[in-house]
Amino acid sequence: MLAARWHPPSYDIRVENVPVPQIEDPDDAVVKVTLAGLCGSDLHIYRGQQPITKVHITGHEFIGEVVKLGSNYGPNAARSTSGRPNLYATLSVGDKVVAPFTVNCGECHVCRLGYTGRCPVGALFGSPKLDGGQAQYVRVPKAGGTLYNLSSPASWSSALTATSDVETLLENISDSSLLLLSDILPTGVFAATQLLAHPKVQPMLTGRSWPSSLNPSSPTIDLGSGLLTQEDRLLTIAMIGLGPVGVCAAVALLDALVQKGLPYRIVAIDINQSRREKMEKVYEAIGSDGKGQNGEFVVQGLEEAKETVAKWTGDVGCTGVLEVVGNNSALTAAYDLARPFGVITSVGVHAPKNVPFTGQDLYNKNISFDFGRCPARAMFPMAFELLVKRQDVFGKVGTESSLIDRVVDIKQASEMYRAFDQGQVGKVLFDPWDQA
Amino acid sequence: MLAARWHPPSYDIRVENVPVPQIEDPDDAVVKVTLAGLCGSDLHIYRGQQPITKVHITGHEFIGEVVKLGSNYGPNAARSTSGRPNLYATLSVGDKVVAPFTVNCGECHVCRLGYTGRCPVGALFGSPKLDGGQAQYVRVPKAGGTLYNLSSPASWSSALTATSDVETLLENISDSSLLLLSDILPTGVFAATQLLAHPKVQPMLTGRSWPSSLNPSSPTIDLGSGLLTQEDRLLTIAMIGLGPVGVCAAVALLDALVQKGLPYRIVAIDINQSRREKMEKVYEAIGSDGKGQNGEFVVQGLEEAKETVAKWTGDVGCTGVLEVVGNNSALTAAYDLARPFGVITSVGVHAPKNVPFTGQDLYNKNISFDFGRCPARAMFPMAFELLVKRQDVFGKVGTESSLIDRVVDIKQASEMYRAFDQGQVGKVLFDPWDQA
Ligand SMILES: NC(=O)c1ccc[n+]([C@@H]2O[C@H](COP(=O)([O-])OP(=O)(O)OC[C@H]3O[C@@H](n4cnc5c(N)ncnc54)[C@H](O)[C@@H]3O)[C@@H](O)[C@H]2O)c1
Ligand SMILES: NC(=O)c1ccc[n+]([C@@H]2O[C@H](COP(=O)([O-])OP(=O)(O)OC[C@H]3O[C@@H](n4cnc5c(N)ncnc54)[C@H](O)[C@@H]3O)[C@@H](O)[C@H]2O)c1
Ligand SMILES: [Zn+2]
Ligand SMILES: [Zn+2]
Ligand SMILES: [Zn+2]
Ligand SMILES: [Zn+2]
Repeated sequence: MLAARWHPPSYDIRVENVPVPQIEDPDDAVVKVTLAGLCGSDLHIYRGQQPITKVHITGHEFIGEVVKLGSNYGPNAARSTSGRPNLYATLSVGDKVVAPFTVNCGECHVCRLGYTGRCPVGALFGSPKLDGGQAQYVRVPKAGGTLYNLSSPASWSSALTATSDVETLLENISDSSLLLLSDILPTGVFAATQLLAHPKVQPMLTGRSWPSSLNPSSPTIDLGSGLLTQEDRLLTIAMIGLGPVGVCAAVALLDALVQKGLPYRIVAIDINQSRREKMEKVYEAIGSDGKGQNGEFVVQGLEEAKETVAKWTGDVGCTGVLEVVGNNSALTAAYDLARPFGVITSVGVHAPKNVPFTGQDLYNKNISFDFGRCPARAMFPMAFELLVKRQDVFGKVGTESSLIDRVVDIKQASEMYRAFDQGQVGKVLFDPWDQA
Repeated sequence: MLAARWHPPSYDIRVENVPVPQIEDPDDAVVKVTLAGLCGSDLHIYRGQQPITKVHITGHEFIGEVVKLGSNYGPNAARSTSGRPNLYATLSVGDKVVAPFTVNCGECHVCRLGYTGRCPVGALFGSPKLDGGQAQYVRVPKAGGTLYNLSSPASWSSALTATSDVETLLENISDSSLLLLSDILPTGVFAATQLLAHPKVQPMLTGRSWPSSLNPSSPTIDLGSGLLTQEDRLLTIAMIGLGPVGVCAAVALLDALVQKGLPYRIVAIDINQSRREKMEKVYEAIGSDGKGQNGEFVVQGLEEAKETVAKWTGDVGCTGVLEVVGNNSALTAAYDLARPFGVITSVGVHAPKNVPFTGQDLYNKNISFDFGRCPARAMFPMAFELLVKRQDVFGKVGTESSLIDRVVDIKQASEMYRAFDQGQVGKVLFDPWDQA
């Protein structure tokens, strides 16, 4: 089969003929890849920033169709499927599937809690430990825990099953759109969800001051009226980093705020003007049901954004900040923008470098931080619901407001890595079966 | 009046005769101090660790009685009390009051949210900015937002007003016990409350995996049964630091777990053996209603604790960790003890020194951190309820299990600072009116 492979030490991607992967373990599935994404995270390995020497197939974003299943699947499974994730009993050859960017067993303590991004037996697709999806076929370990079965409404949210049937739904959503489920869309949903769920944000959401915001029967400070004013409850949120993940986070955040009926002011920040322009276009493309009536959304550079937040909040700062960059200057900006008792949700992938804060800085502002990888498998049902709802944004390819710049033959992988690394193209998808 | 005053550069506390403080602002109150506490936090200034030169009255923990009120109080107030904190209308000379360790206006945006510890017009008692309570009288700025009126059931929790009347209640609680409200007890309650409210802990509390733990109608990963097992839900919590604040946090945490009916395993950690012994004694003193039936509570040194957690959780780590120390070695221990997607709640006061983590460390374990000062005024109703309930622990002075070692004449302040700094006495309270 054809596959894009990374060669040491760096900047060397080759499309080569390699053996089709086989079932190696009874829990494995083999998936025929329909589309594979090229992602900012692929550049860490591409650039040789990690101490890796092993030649391996790249890519952690793919959708496709199940073509082979290990002996632990189906009614006559070698191992009983009872008590295991449903997919061991129900997954079939021919099912349309998407995988998260990491493997997760779905049955250990960590997975059961929903923290699938940190399954102890997990592995990242497209790493020396596990061949990736920029290929015609990919082997998926622990596929019963890892894969999300798009063909089965059993895995959909109730909102989706209530409004649509499988065929109609899948017919109306392109594969390029579905590909966003593998990484950037659930990560955006995760970031937004985590921020709004934080206890320090609850006073704005509930209208009750801390700590009775956590529990209506908790006794709390006796204010004049006992309740917060509409102005107190106005959420001010900064988002730092408007790459593909940042844009997904913005759409997810807006959707969550509108669903909850919350008034908001969002400042979306990037140092790169073309990224700011993309964000503007995406915002314009979102239908009014995705923005609500009580919101303000501006896109700015960092210095301008600081002034905006100071003006909006009388120098108090933001309720919450999303850090979707992955470097220390973004963390510092997040700190500066947050109010006392502010929340910083970071989904950026960070380097092995000390974070730029003293304990006194963090104490003095009562800062809360949430770091880390998206538990993508656990986010799929929410992300899929948002994907269907916001086809005005996610359903497009190659327009000014689309997250996907183009779909190309996988044979162009080497050239596309180069162009993507140099900022000459936006998000690219590879078609491994292109006949042109 | 008599007052303990700090003199530069360090280790110099003198009990001196100084003028009685007067009303300086219409929002002020003057409080006659009944008892004032000596606290670990006083040692930062005592030791000259801060760039301070101003002679000032020490102490941020006191209870007492209102003796003077500014012109903004009462029915004939110079300024209308409508829309202001209730106390501007209701506080009277003679009321028994306790203050948090910082002033807070109670009416700005930050205070209204309940984040009183970071009121922009706040100040710390016993600092160069504001004379403290280790004296016969103390001036309380913004007293209508700052003070908690123990004499008025209007400020009590409904649980307390339902079970008791003012006279009976206050008769049965000693002043030394009430003094704990000024700092260490609300800080312990704050730490425990913050930890258990964190979204990453909710799967254990709700029995639903993340993200449907946040919202029952959120679609979530489709597991075999859809619900977590009893074993999944067993909370494993480490507490680091068993000084007075750590012990209060332990009692508060146990109480919250028992109230919620949650099974738990707690390992309480200190490097100091006498601190561990005190914690053991306190745990023994707690009535069975404060421990519940489904809990395990062990007190250990750090290395032993790491083994305990590894054994308890099969090397996964703790759901949450409380850091009640205030140094980098405790933060590192907290990181090591936390599970992936673990929560670290830090109430330690930290130095202006970089925290010992890289962004990669925090990303790799999906760590959440909550730092900072207790919003003590907002925590008072909860803390007061716990104080009344747990008189088995908080109601004692000078026993093996009591948090208060002794009550002494304020004239011994200099000697007590010295002994406390050298670990020769536990928590000491000063009586400014001792005639002996
Ligand atoms: N947590 C997860 O599970 C997860 C999943 C996917 C991606 N990621 C990470 O999320 C981050 C964003 O991903 P992406 O693909 O959108 O990346 P990207 O590189 O395309 O976008 C990052 C953006 O941040 C901007 N930026 C850089 N420094 C900045 C600063 N100091 N202030 C403001 N903006 C700044 C850049 O101009 C760029 O537009 C990356 O770190 C990526 O590795 C994490
Ligand atoms: N957040 C707030 O609002 C607030 C309020 C009050 C106190 N504090 C802070 O809380 C902390 C605890 O206060 P306290 O009065 O109980 O202090 P303390 O100094 O009496 O107790 C600290 C304990 O930590 C132990 N310790 C030190 N290093 C350790 C390590 N590496 N591992 C395990 N244990 C270690 C010590 O042996 C000691 O028993 C201090 O930093 C204090 O300043 C914060
Ligand atoms: Zn990706
Ligand atoms: Zn797992
Ligand atoms: Zn104190
Ligand atoms: Zn205030």
